[in-house]
Amino acid sequence: MENANYTALTPETLSTRLVALPAVTERLGTDAESWQVKEVGDGNLNLVFIVQSDQGSIIVKQALPYVRLVGDSWPLPLYRAYFEYHALTRQAARDPGTVPEIYHFDEDQALIVMEFLSPHVILRSKLIAGEKVDDLGAFCGKYCARTAFRGSELSMTSADKKADVGLFAGNVEIPAITEGLVFTDPYFEAELNNHTPELEPVINELRNNIELKRMAQVMLTKFASNTETMVHGDLHSGSIMATQSEIRVIDPEFAQYAPLGFDIGMLTANYLMAYFSQPAHRGTDLEAYQDWILSVITECWSSFEAEFRHLWNTERTGMLFPKSLFEDQGHSSETACDGVLADIWQDALRFCGIEMHRRCLSLAHNADFETIEDTTVRAPLEARNLQMGAELVLKTDTLKDAKALIALARTFNARNIL
Amino acid sequence: MENANYTALTPETLSTRLVALPAVTERLGTDAESWQVKEVGDGNLNLVFIVQSDQGSIIVKQALPYVRLVGDSWPLPLYRAYFEYHALTRQAARDPGTVPEIYHFDEDQALIVMEFLSPHVILRSKLIAGEKVDDLGAFCGKYCARTAFRGSELSMTSADKKADVGLFAGNVEIPAITEGLVFTDPYFEAELNNHTPELEPVINELRNNIELKRMAQVMLTKFASNTETMVHGDLHSGSIMATQSEIRVIDPEFAQYAPLGFDIGMLTANYLMAYFSQPAHRGTDLEAYQDWILSVITECWSSFEAEFRHLWNTERTGMLFPKSLFEDQGHSSETACDGVLADIWQDALRFCGIEMHRRCLSLAHNADFETIEDTTVRAPLEARNLQMGAELVLKTDTLKDAKALIALARTFNARNIL
Repeated sequence: MENANYTALTPETLSTRLVALPAVTERLGTDAESWQVKEVGDGNLNLVFIVQSDQGSIIVKQALPYVRLVGDSWPLPLYRAYFEYHALTRQAARDPGTVPEIYHFDEDQALIVMEFLSPHVILRSKLIAGEKVDDLGAFCGKYCARTAFRGSELSMTSADKKADVGLFAGNVEIPAITEGLVFTDPYFEAELNNHTPELEPVINELRNNIELKRMAQVMLTKFASNTETMVHGDLHSGSIMATQSEIRVIDPEFAQYAPLGFDIGMLTANYLMAYFSQPAHRGTDLEAYQDWILSVITECWSSFEAEFRHLWNTERTGMLFPKSLFEDQGHSSETACDGVLADIWQDALRFCGIEMHRRCLSLAHNADFETIEDTTVRAPLEARNLQMGAELVLKTDTLKDAKALIALARTFNARNIL
Repeated sequence: MENANYTALTPETLSTRLVALPAVTERLGTDAESWQVKEVGDGNLNLVFIVQSDQGSIIVKQALPYVRLVGDSWPLPLYRAYFEYHALTRQAARDPGTVPEIYHFDEDQALIVMEFLSPHVILRSKLIAGEKVDDLGAFCGKYCARTAFRGSELSMTSADKKADVGLFAGNVEIPAITEGLVFTDPYFEAELNNHTPELEPVINELRNNIELKRMAQVMLTKFASNTETMVHGDLHSGSIMATQSEIRVIDPEFAQYAPLGFDIGMLTANYLMAYFSQPAHRGTDLEAYQDWILSVITECWSSFEAEFRHLWNTERTGMLFPKSLFEDQGHSSETACDGVLADIWQDALRFCGIEMHRRCLSLAHNADFETIEDTTVRAPLEARNLQMGAELVLKTDTLKDAKALIALARTFNARNIL
């Protein structure tokens, strides 16, 4: 993972540097001078270019040696492209068709050439714009179940899984971002934090709740030490691209081994934040659109559970909960599956609550709330989100299923906190 | 980790092969022909030699490419010597003076030259012979607390800990032994199993208990996926050598990253098995000696807890439960420490119960019971042990502390099961 010859691409140098790659010329032709190069960025971390010719189009994604959002005062290793590449190939195998196709990977340049998704747009933009996506919940639930199950020792051989844990253990700085920004920074005055000023009283309440901080650290311990499966690691509505009927999951450079419930928990949080932010984005269609978002959450969880149970019964070939102890002895393994799902649910709710906090309190906020310019409108909506987050972390046991979760969201959505 | 030039030592070739090593000649002198070489074995896996001269003595331990207990039908990688070496150096740093000193390590020959402990003998032999060891519980509790705490992200930097998790993830076949023999084989008719014939009815009860098998697999999931700290991995009374007043922990080739409560749970099981086996080994001193074993368990736990709390307050420099969230805000972290200790206790009890099962049902039994030749004497004692094991796995919540654990042991010790 040396990058001695690394040079960051520019729109000017890109064509010259990529025209030698068959993976590129196959799709764009060899007339590099005619290529149109557009730098689009991807938010917080990388260089991203769309390169188009008469013949086709590609995405070129290159890691930068620092956090783009912060600048070169926060260095970040180029090797994250290596982990993104490995994550994408595993996800493609575990849930085919859900991630962009990779055309070329250059470890030295920390560069991935991949499928240009068009006319897909980032799901978060759609949620802010009030657009629906067909079968969104079912897609997400199935994706989370398949990648979780097939990346765990319920399915993989232990030797393969341990080798993969060893490989991803090399990814230190990227998980460190999550460890700090998600689990710890929200609960004290960390240097890079920022929040809507009107939220002060709500934030003080959270930071004075010792049990909440304790549980956030219990979940950090699980996130950092529990290698149950390979997770996407940053699954939110900004990591999903969609048309009205087609969906893909992108940007798994935060991939690591982590608890089975991590991805679906983080994703649920981002749907809940979309839900809570809607009063500032919608008009007369508010109630209908909020209902739709909640239906996505319900559908996501029911599809997750159904798919996980299906895989449990058809692909349980790893060392965990082996048939020799259950089916082969004439004993049902259903309660065992129930137990695994119950643990996933509980972990997911807690990760969900913590994600709802950090997106309003820590460094990287989300557009759902950030695009609400009037802070007197934004703050009360964020406050609902923050208080529900605390409830998810602290009263997990009282929430038995997605129906209870949805009911709770409706309760908080009706509260006037600030 | 290639071993192209590996050749197993013999008592005849040993002197010639080791006389070139300064680490050896420093201690034994250079007159190799006068050295006395005695092969002593170490039970299940390796070649072990005591080499003595007029000037001193050393232990030479060499891995064999198969499981010694089973033969070359069960190959086992030589790289376990590499992990034993790395484990010993970490343990020596985390609890100085508790492990044998290493004089020389040869990765290619899978060979470690180390301190010869004399007149130490294996603790298990002492427990069978009815001998006491001063401060045994305090030593074990402190050792478990220090290695657990200082090997975790409560203390280590995340970068160091992740690098170490990556290193130990290369150890696949050794954890696989534990995964199979400890967590799964006891609960079905695995090929290599053996048990005292009279136990059949008790065993059938265990194997028909779906909840017990489910919990064993939940604990296997934790063992295989939870990298909280570097554990010894095989901490039983056969891995401890002692005089009446001096104690050392040996043989950490099963070291891996695993839950904080694993070592102390396994060790507690081995004290309980020593306790249950005593009626076959003692005469009039039975009650007094059994009381002493129970006092070792109590002392082990109280010393573990005291040391863990001490380290929590003085060495909590890792990313978990940082002072920024607690002490720096004027908030006590005591309930957080209580919570971590409660989780360790609960995990440990369950690991303990499972270890009590596997040592009577799976491949590698222990001498506490195995040396009882009359099976009609042995079986009822093993039955007490097996049934208490199930209670520890299934009724963990009802046992609040070591006092409750000891009371439970006394109850089972009084039961006539077969």
